[in-house]
Amino acid sequence: MEKIFVTGAAGFIGSSLTDLLLQQGRSVVGWDNFSTGQPEFLAAAGKHPNFKLIRGDNLDLDAMTAAMKGCDAVVHLAANADVRFGLQHPRRDLEQNTIATFNVLEAMRANGTKVIGFASSGSVYGEAVTIPTPEDYSFPIQTSLYAASKVAGEGMIHSYCEGFSFESYIFRFVSILGERYTHGHVFDFYKQLLDHPGHLKILGDGKQRKSYLYIQDCLDAMLHVMTLGTAKTAKHRVQTYNLGTEEFVQVNDSVGFLCNALGLKPTLEYTGGNKGWVGDNPFIFLDTKKIRATGWKPKLTIEQGILRTVEWLRQNQWVYEKRK
Amino acid sequence: MEKIFVTGAAGFIGSSLTDLLLQQGRSVVGWDNFSTGQPEFLAAAGKHPNFKLIRGDNLDLDAMTAAMKGCDAVVHLAANADVRFGLQHPRRDLEQNTIATFNVLEAMRANGTKVIGFASSGSVYGEAVTIPTPEDYSFPIQTSLYAASKVAGEGMIHSYCEGFSFESYIFRFVSILGERYTHGHVFDFYKQLLDHPGHLKILGDGKQRKSYLYIQDCLDAMLHVMTLGTAKTAKHRVQTYNLGTEEFVQVNDSVGFLCNALGLKPTLEYTGGNKGWVGDNPFIFLDTKKIRATGWKPKLTIEQGILRTVEWLRQNQWVYEKRK
Repeated sequence: MEKIFVTGAAGFIGSSLTDLLLQQGRSVVGWDNFSTGQPEFLAAAGKHPNFKLIRGDNLDLDAMTAAMKGCDAVVHLAANADVRFGLQHPRRDLEQNTIATFNVLEAMRANGTKVIGFASSGSVYGEAVTIPTPEDYSFPIQTSLYAASKVAGEGMIHSYCEGFSFESYIFRFVSILGERYTHGHVFDFYKQLLDHPGHLKILGDGKQRKSYLYIQDCLDAMLHVMTLGTAKTAKHRVQTYNLGTEEFVQVNDSVGFLCNALGLKPTLEYTGGNKGWVGDNPFIFLDTKKIRATGWKPKLTIEQGILRTVEWLRQNQWVYEKRK
Repeated sequence: MEKIFVTGAAGFIGSSLTDLLLQQGRSVVGWDNFSTGQPEFLAAAGKHPNFKLIRGDNLDLDAMTAAMKGCDAVVHLAANADVRFGLQHPRRDLEQNTIATFNVLEAMRANGTKVIGFASSGSVYGEAVTIPTPEDYSFPIQTSLYAASKVAGEGMIHSYCEGFSFESYIFRFVSILGERYTHGHVFDFYKQLLDHPGHLKILGDGKQRKSYLYIQDCLDAMLHVMTLGTAKTAKHRVQTYNLGTEEFVQVNDSVGFLCNALGLKPTLEYTGGNKGWVGDNPFIFLDTKKIRATGWKPKLTIEQGILRTVEWLRQNQWVYEKRK
């Protein structure tokens, strides 16, 4: 039975992946520092005999190395995902993303674990001129510390593939949403409408065009292409895939889906400008031909994903208390 | 008078830049940890009233911030430049390159210093398919921890430009040589021939194609495009330039130039394969149209640069004692 080490296992994507891997008959070692992870998300996994949870800090290489012992593959999802406030604490992206990824690679090297899946981000393309943006787009200019830290992580993974024969699967995500989603536009908008149903403040002009992917479609894609057992001697050891749907929506569209679902007609207030904040990307839309060519395709549209998200948030308002 | 903070000031490029800046009437604060820097290289600068040397560690942010006080611009050259042995100490590139660059940026932010020149590397293109390789080449796959750390540095610099209105000049160097050169093929070959003039061991098959640029041409290019005073409100705050000549040579050619200059005919022994080591790039040749379009061009050919290097090494064999 393959044993998979999942970092950020108590997070939105990590806990969903953990449940799926267990369901597939795999064994999971979950690693999380619970800085944003939720113990509730691992309630089901916690009862499973093939799951082991280890609370640990990504900067503690010794503990991570010990925790990873005997694992066949790693899916590295732990990260500071707070893109918007990166400028207020630049060190956080360096430590929790760049150095954390280095530690994951070093722990793998110490354990002889050679397969890694990595959650990168479509934000690494910066303000791409080519849209939809393909994986081999021009050498990009980073517009956020978050994206810069993801590029740093990708580069280190590449060099461990070259130098230590690792096999890597790098996934450049659009925004993921669905059950257990606790971060992003829809999360923030719903919170506002809980607090004041008649009024919604929108950062920017609402015309920013964004892409989303439903969590189960995201996990399907990852597991569709990853080798989770022993590393193959792949000719190309670095495999990079954009993950997203073939559509994008304006922030205003998301607001519309959300308000319709809730039966609300709030007054909309725009802060103005084509960006929500410094480093916000006014148009993210990834070319997903490469992952589609493997046979994967998403099951839900962006609107369907947003509706599932709203439904989950409606039933799980406790997450707003926890994330205060 | 502009006051420039030069990291790695006691190194090959740093000390040469320091001399040139002082000669141009600028003031220089030199920062070096002397891990590979040579006090002898700063002998002349040390007597100049506009030069101040501060010995410090790139990981000591407080000391760096204090040292940088009052500087108008930074040229960040300090780095672990030991590409070949990167796999033996992966943490060194993370610390001395990635984290060091983060500290330089944070020290700049604390001091309100907003202009940075950064020594990146042509190795960031990995094994590029497009040769000569332009600055906007495809999103690359890194083949060494060194190159990965340079990509990480570039990305962080980009995001400080976006988030904190920095102005940056990123230079992707080919191998630089000339007076004070203490690292690389020619250095290693000359050392071998000093030890055993009749025999030369060459890593790989000798057919690796490499590019070199003479140090004074490199410095001319950097100072030709950089603003060293107050940051302009540049529309494009990130300016990236390849630096090199319009030619390349085989390792075998370099050997020929060297042996001719020394009047030696050693037996050549090849270790074989198209790479000298894991992560060695068998063909580096950069497209330099962009920097040439600014009016700069190199004065020396690769052969002339190698001959100057050999002449300097002949007169300065003490560097081999120091680098043991």
